[in-house]
Amino acid sequence: MRLALDGERFWETVEQSGRIGVGRPGGLARLALSDADCEARDLFVTWCRAAGLAVTVDRMGSIFARREGAEPGLAPVLFGSHLDSQANGGRFDGPVGLLAGLELLRALDDAGVRTRRPLVLVNWTNEEGARFSPAMVASGVFAGVYELDWALARRADDGATLGDELERIGYAGSAEPGFPIDAYVELHIEQGPRLEAEGVPVGVVTGGYVVHGWRIELEGETAHTGPWPMEQRRNALVGAARIATLVDDVGQRHAATEGKATVNRLVASPNKPGTLSDWAELSVDVRHEDRAVADAMRDEVDAAIAAGAAAARVEPRVLDRWHWGGEIFDRELVGLVRETARGLGHATLDLPSQAGHDAYHLATVAPAAMLFSPCRGGITHNHREETTLAEQLPAVETLAAVVLARADRP
Amino acid sequence: MRLALDGERFWETVEQSGRIGVGRPGGLARLALSDADCEARDLFVTWCRAAGLAVTVDRMGSIFARREGAEPGLAPVLFGSHLDSQANGGRFDGPVGLLAGLELLRALDDAGVRTRRPLVLVNWTNEEGARFSPAMVASGVFAGVYELDWALARRADDGATLGDELERIGYAGSAEPGFPIDAYVELHIEQGPRLEAEGVPVGVVTGGYVVHGWRIELEGETAHTGPWPMEQRRNALVGAARIATLVDDVGQRHAATEGKATVNRLVASPNKPGTLSDWAELSVDVRHEDRAVADAMRDEVDAAIAAGAAAARVEPRVLDRWHWGGEIFDRELVGLVRETARGLGHATLDLPSQAGHDAYHLATVAPAAMLFSPCRGGITHNHREETTLAEQLPAVETLAAVVLARADRP
Repeated sequence: MRLALDGERFWETVEQSGRIGVGRPGGLARLALSDADCEARDLFVTWCRAAGLAVTVDRMGSIFARREGAEPGLAPVLFGSHLDSQANGGRFDGPVGLLAGLELLRALDDAGVRTRRPLVLVNWTNEEGARFSPAMVASGVFAGVYELDWALARRADDGATLGDELERIGYAGSAEPGFPIDAYVELHIEQGPRLEAEGVPVGVVTGGYVVHGWRIELEGETAHTGPWPMEQRRNALVGAARIATLVDDVGQRHAATEGKATVNRLVASPNKPGTLSDWAELSVDVRHEDRAVADAMRDEVDAAIAAGAAAARVEPRVLDRWHWGGEIFDRELVGLVRETARGLGHATLDLPSQAGHDAYHLATVAPAAMLFSPCRGGITHNHREETTLAEQLPAVETLAAVVLARADRP
Repeated sequence: MRLALDGERFWETVEQSGRIGVGRPGGLARLALSDADCEARDLFVTWCRAAGLAVTVDRMGSIFARREGAEPGLAPVLFGSHLDSQANGGRFDGPVGLLAGLELLRALDDAGVRTRRPLVLVNWTNEEGARFSPAMVASGVFAGVYELDWALARRADDGATLGDELERIGYAGSAEPGFPIDAYVELHIEQGPRLEAEGVPVGVVTGGYVVHGWRIELEGETAHTGPWPMEQRRNALVGAARIATLVDDVGQRHAATEGKATVNRLVASPNKPGTLSDWAELSVDVRHEDRAVADAMRDEVDAAIAAGAAAARVEPRVLDRWHWGGEIFDRELVGLVRETARGLGHATLDLPSQAGHDAYHLATVAPAAMLFSPCRGGITHNHREETTLAEQLPAVETLAAVVLARADRP
C-alpha cells in the first residue's frame, strides 16, 4: 500500500530537533547523554506517547516506541536511527531516519491501518561514539556484540561513564537489551556526494566499507626538553605524531581507489611545555570497499604503529581493535528496498556505506537493510550539512512502504 | 669569608619541600599556583619569617625575603629560584637553589654577620611554564620583558588565569614588580649529565643555549571520517602531527652537535572518533649552543610548519614566538663564581645551560650569573631526579660566598 505521509509534519519534527543542542560553530553539539541529548530524547518520547505508542527504555538507554500489530505474538519489524550528534554535527544525521519512522507511525494512525506484525521505532544510544567509544555501542549490546556491563563502563573524556550519565539524565531503563525481531530497516542520509551528483533520490545500501580501527597507547618517559639528548628521548607525543603521519600516508596511498585512513584522536600527558610526554593515546581507522585492500591497509597500519613507536623509542600497546563492514545486509531485504523504491517511481543507486551504522550490528541477528537519502555535497559531521524535505521524501516514502511490506508479509 | 653553613638544616628544608605535591608516578606535581604550590609557599614564608626576614609579595606572586644591609639604601643582591614543578617533576629542580639561599641567610644570623648591601631571596612564580605559558613569566615581568596585565591574563588548560589563581591562593601581592638590584645569582641543578660524568661539583654557567619557540594554531574543517575523500580532507590533527614529525626530524638532524628539537604539546578539537578535527594547537622549540645553528634550525622549523600544514591542507597561524639564550651573563660575575668556587677548593666546569632559567630575564637588567650543581644521570623533569646533600654542598657554599663577596664589595 502507498501510505499518505504528511511531509510538512515530518519536516517540522526534524526542524524542532535541529534546534536542540546547537554549538560551535553552528552545528549540533548534541553529544550522547548530554543535557541536549536528554532534551531531544524527552521531546521524542513526548511525540511518541502523543501518537499512542508504548515507550520502553532498555538498560543501554535505547528508546523503543511500539505500535501493536494484529498478531502481537509475532516478532516486530524494527526501524529507527539516532538523536545524538558529533561535536559539530549536522541536524539531519540520525534524526531524518528516526523521525521518518515517527511519521510512518503517525500516518498509520491517520489511515486507521493495523499491520500484521508489531512495529517498533528505536532511538539508539551513542551511535556517534563522539562522547563514548566505541560508536554504535547500544545497538552492539542489543545484538550481543558487546557485553552490557562493559558498555555501561565506557568513559567520556569528562570522566563520566555511560552508565552514570544514563542515570543522571533519567534514561537508565530497566529492560534487558535485545529481543527477537523480524527485520531491521534504517534510513540515513548518505554522508557522501553520490546520490546528489547522480540525481538519484534513493540509495540502496549493499553493505558497508570494510573498516579496521585501533586505539593505541604509547608509553615513553618524562625528561627535560632542553638538555636531554635527542638519541635518548622517549617522547610519547612524538611517537603518536609519527604514527599519525604514517597512518595518513596509508590513506594517501589508497586514495585513488577511495580508500580512507583517519587519525581520529590524539591525547598526550603531561603534554606541557618543558617536559617530554610519557604517555599518549591515539585512535585511527582505515576503510576500503574491497576487503582484500582493507586488510592490506590494516597490515600497513600495524607496520606504521611499530615503525612510528620505534622511531620515538616508545612502547606501543594496542588497547582496542575493531572491525566492521562487508556485505552484511540481507539480500532479500535489500532487494525489497530496491523494488519498493522503483515501484514508487523513484530511481535508485546501489552503493556501499562508508560510515558505520547501527544496522551493521542488527544485521548479525536478523535480516537488515539500509536506504540512503541525499546529502548536499556529501558534507556531514559539519555544521554545513544540508538537505530539503523534497530531497528526503522519496526515501521516507520508500522506508514506510518497505516497513509495511515486511510487517504484512505472510 | 667562609660562612659556616648547616648542611643538615638545609637538606631538611629540601626534604620537607619534596613531600608537598607528590603526584603520578611519584614525582612532584606542584604546578604553579596549585594548592600544593600554595602549601609549599606557605611553608617557605613561615621559614623566612622565622629567620627574621621581611617578606613581600609582588603582583606576579613572586615572594621576596629581605635581610637588611648595613647600607639599606644600596641596591640589594638578589638570589633565589622557584618552588613550582612540572607535572612529574623532581624535588630538587628549583627548591635546591631557593633553599640554599635560605640557608645562607640563616647562617648569617648564626654568625652575626651584617652585609654591606641588603640581601633578597626570591621565589619566582611559574618558572616551569607547565601550568601557565610562557615559562619564567614572573621574572620576565620583573625585568620588564613582559607586561604585567598580559602575564596575569595567561590561562591554564583548566581555564583559570594566572591572576585569578594568585587571588585564589592568596598570593596576589601589592608590590609593583621590579626594583633596582646590584646583581642576581642563581644556583640550580644542572639538568644534564656533565658535572656528574666529569666528577666536578660546581658548574659555572657561561650562558644559555639559544632557544627559538613557537605556539602554532592550525585551522581545518570537520567532516565525516568515513566517506569524505582523502584529497579534500583538512584534518587539523593530521597537520599538527605532520609538523610535529618534521620538527622531531630537525632535532634528529642536529643531534650530533647536541641540537635539540622538542614537540612540547599538541591539542586538537573536536579530537573525537568519527569526525575530522577542525582545530589544533602545537608548541615546539629548538635549541643549540651555536647561535648560527640555532637560527638555521629556526628556519627549518618554519619550513616544517609550512610543509606539514600544506600536506594536510590546513591553515597555520603562529600565535607566539619566543627566543632566549646566548652569552647573556655578566663576565665579571661569572668570573667571580669560578674564582670563588676554586678558592673554596672546588673544581669547576664552564658549561652552557640547555634549559631556560629566570636568570636569563634578570640578565637583561643587572649583572647576572648562575652556578650548577650535579644531577644524577642528568635526569630531570622526571620522578627519578636524584642527588644528595654531599653532591650539592660545594655549589651551595659557592653560592653563599659569591653572594657575600658581591654584597660586601666596595
